[in-house]
Amino acid sequence: MSKGITSRAEDYSQWYNELVIKADLAENSAVRGCMVIKPYGYAIWERMQAILDKRFKETGHSNAYFPLFIPKSFFSKEAAHVEGFATECAVVTHYRLKNDGTGKIVVDEDAKLEEELIVRPTSETIIWNTYRGWIESYRDLPILVNQWANVVRWEMRTRLFLRTAEFLWQEGHTAHATREEAIEETERMLDVYAEFAEKILAVPVVRGRKTENERFAGALDTYCIEALMQDGKALQAGTSHFLGQNFAKAFDVKFTSKEGKLEHVWATSWGVSTRLMGALIMAHSDDQGLVLPPKLAPIQVVIVPIFKTEEEKAQIDAFVNQLTNELRVNDISVKYDDRDTQRPGFKFAEWELKGVPVRVAVGARDMQNGTVELARRDTQTKETVAQEGLAGTIVQLLDTIQENIYQKALNFRTSHFTEVNSYDEFKEVLEGKGGFISCHWDGTTETEKRVKEETKATIRCIPLDAKEEEGICVFTGKPSSRRVLFAKAY
Amino acid sequence: MSKGITSRAEDYSQWYNELVIKADLAENSAVRGCMVIKPYGYAIWERMQAILDKRFKETGHSNAYFPLFIPKSFFSKEAAHVEGFATECAVVTHYRLKNDGTGKIVVDEDAKLEEELIVRPTSETIIWNTYRGWIESYRDLPILVNQWANVVRWEMRTRLFLRTAEFLWQEGHTAHATREEAIEETERMLDVYAEFAEKILAVPVVRGRKTENERFAGALDTYCIEALMQDGKALQAGTSHFLGQNFAKAFDVKFTSKEGKLEHVWATSWGVSTRLMGALIMAHSDDQGLVLPPKLAPIQVVIVPIFKTEEEKAQIDAFVNQLTNELRVNDISVKYDDRDTQRPGFKFAEWELKGVPVRVAVGARDMQNGTVELARRDTQTKETVAQEGLAGTIVQLLDTIQENIYQKALNFRTSHFTEVNSYDEFKEVLEGKGGFISCHWDGTTETEKRVKEETKATIRCIPLDAKEEEGICVFTGKPSSRRVLFAKAY
Repeated sequence: MSKGITSRAEDYSQWYNELVIKADLAENSAVRGCMVIKPYGYAIWERMQAILDKRFKETGHSNAYFPLFIPKSFFSKEAAHVEGFATECAVVTHYRLKNDGTGKIVVDEDAKLEEELIVRPTSETIIWNTYRGWIESYRDLPILVNQWANVVRWEMRTRLFLRTAEFLWQEGHTAHATREEAIEETERMLDVYAEFAEKILAVPVVRGRKTENERFAGALDTYCIEALMQDGKALQAGTSHFLGQNFAKAFDVKFTSKEGKLEHVWATSWGVSTRLMGALIMAHSDDQGLVLPPKLAPIQVVIVPIFKTEEEKAQIDAFVNQLTNELRVNDISVKYDDRDTQRPGFKFAEWELKGVPVRVAVGARDMQNGTVELARRDTQTKETVAQEGLAGTIVQLLDTIQENIYQKALNFRTSHFTEVNSYDEFKEVLEGKGGFISCHWDGTTETEKRVKEETKATIRCIPLDAKEEEGICVFTGKPSSRRVLFAKAY
Repeated sequence: MSKGITSRAEDYSQWYNELVIKADLAENSAVRGCMVIKPYGYAIWERMQAILDKRFKETGHSNAYFPLFIPKSFFSKEAAHVEGFATECAVVTHYRLKNDGTGKIVVDEDAKLEEELIVRPTSETIIWNTYRGWIESYRDLPILVNQWANVVRWEMRTRLFLRTAEFLWQEGHTAHATREEAIEETERMLDVYAEFAEKILAVPVVRGRKTENERFAGALDTYCIEALMQDGKALQAGTSHFLGQNFAKAFDVKFTSKEGKLEHVWATSWGVSTRLMGALIMAHSDDQGLVLPPKLAPIQVVIVPIFKTEEEKAQIDAFVNQLTNELRVNDISVKYDDRDTQRPGFKFAEWELKGVPVRVAVGARDMQNGTVELARRDTQTKETVAQEGLAGTIVQLLDTIQENIYQKALNFRTSHFTEVNSYDEFKEVLEGKGGFISCHWDGTTETEKRVKEETKATIRCIPLDAKEEEGICVFTGKPSSRRVLFAKAY
């Protein structure tokens, strides 16, 4: 099987685009900016969903579902919010088509909506309008709700998974009696995301806060996790917003406190999306194709038989059958690729392209020797191991691979994390190896915007673990009390 | 807790509406015809999803995701299809809002789409347009794909779960090399739905085919499962369509057969929706509230402590803790309702309203006697049983309840299934107890429509198990070769 993927060194962006298509993850649809997520890609997304959903429930959240459409007037109620989303909204104006008499199907102008509906780009407004009816007293709080949904943001330049007009995501929307509790929730969910990214996606992340300029439209504070891709660009992998009382005020959501006072409710919202698929792909994959961490791989182990006669095949089948059963008992997903239409070499290349973590090849000589060939996708190494105890060997190997993939990404990030103390140094690193650049900044949006214009780098976050440190803004020479992280970003 | 639900006898329709709201299942939103599915209602839907999804995967299907929007021109490519859906489509015409200068947010007329987009009412067109790129040879077939998604049909008269402008569903879309294989798939998925309805929802269903007049727009044959509600009206609970080559022809999807010939691909589609929530509620619930079959109940067992002193409470807690662990080992979901803000009577009424199948009440005297009070939601009976072996008792009881709920619904249907041989008889039954009416019909759409006009009854289906039987159409006196099922329907 000839894969013919452009190498990362040659053209990273092209490598990504080709990989997404060739590994059968997703493709562009006939609708501008909207993608089709193919079964193999969707199976990875389903694994992400299942693991996150479990974590949300363990932290006390329930799922619910709110309308796809938002009345235009709702959308306009929170000033910063509408400002942030108005320029990229799909708008429904009519509710009927008709045959124009000549056989052509046209929009029926008699079926114009009284008020236009926005296809949700995010659901704060419709949800807070609903919460007004759910909340009277402190006894009704907290409300800890999550929604799995599709959202639409009419992006002009789109890329599969990374930026699409429609995407899938989850959005948590919680309501609290106090500021402190809401902030605690915001931070708790950031931790859930960070742990998911590191333990499951095997992608190390920096936890931080966005600057005012980069905040979610309507938030008082936006927390984020920032990951680093192999081309030295950062990718925002999840956000958790402390919304203060902004939406409660816009939608008149009040509660009677324990002390009998009427107060506005405190809010958070937090989300991750199919963008995580982009992060996963770009963080680990190589010129041979996908590299999937075992915890997300829809197929963790593929077994390829190598045989000449039916008799050999029957012998291998019996062995594979037993191995498969032992692996499944350990919750490991296995595929036995015994297609007779393709040769082993083709199969090896195909599963390598699709990022299956472990490949077992077993032939007639292996059966005589009581061995198999065990190949690792992450290191592209293979070795001959005993059939005896093989299931246990594989279980351990999958853990090793998960850990190795994470370590590799962590090493990359460590070597692409640079403290700089001058603008020259800043530009040199940025145009050189890239990565996160830690430097002092004077705290103004003006400087932030100027740097972005001059270099395309943005402040990814103010790391939560940033130390107080007296310094001088590398751009303006003004005083600064701690370092922030700059990078070019997706 | 005063529930104050209108009784079924008084006003069945009102009973349903109030129950959906008071049991916290769903509510109307600010967007016309769109509902909010509340956490308790959504938890039931999630159980349905999980069970169905597992069955789809067991029958070889994978999930994928296709765009929310469909270009108007695609939608028009299959004539019967557009005819069937054109009058209820939400249409996106613009992609941006703007501030009109006075601070008012308006649709930006400069951002008009070149081609209007339809919010999917169903996805055959966008999916078959995609399949064209996936299929070249018989080796690419079958394609067995399912999608969990939201869809929009602009209904004028809506009711929570039963008929809403936006609803959630799954839609399977499969592609096959032969007519026979596609028909087999259509029937297989009907069986999956029927088994789900009977074994999980505990709702007996009739499997049948729709008449030409009631077919899905674009299908050659529509199979359905039809359930009976307590008011004697039928409800279509799922459909499975044999689409022939209609969509393959409309979207030019051909494959090279084993024999080397270029042929159009054969298609099926099949779906169930949040409408099943309506069926579930209306089939089993009573004047006290929901009655949930254990296999779908988000909370299967609720435990209510009755105590006066902290010491009594501590003793009960220890017992409940152990019981809960034993139940969870058996995958039973338990809620220990030890809120100190409500009295036991209030709690009993609340969980009764919410349909929790089994209630355990345990007081200080029970602790002395080694007993608990065990109450069944379905029969509204209670008995004192031993604490020893209680987990096992409950596991068995849940099975008994599941079976009893089904039997009760089956008995109701049996007593509301009437063979008639004259139009007078037909009308008498229809206006009397209602239910399914089995009678001869001359096979014409004309008669079918006339009967609907005169009586509001429609042909629910031609049952799959209908025997060949010479007879006379009760409406026209023309010859007929088998009976069909009429009913008033949701």
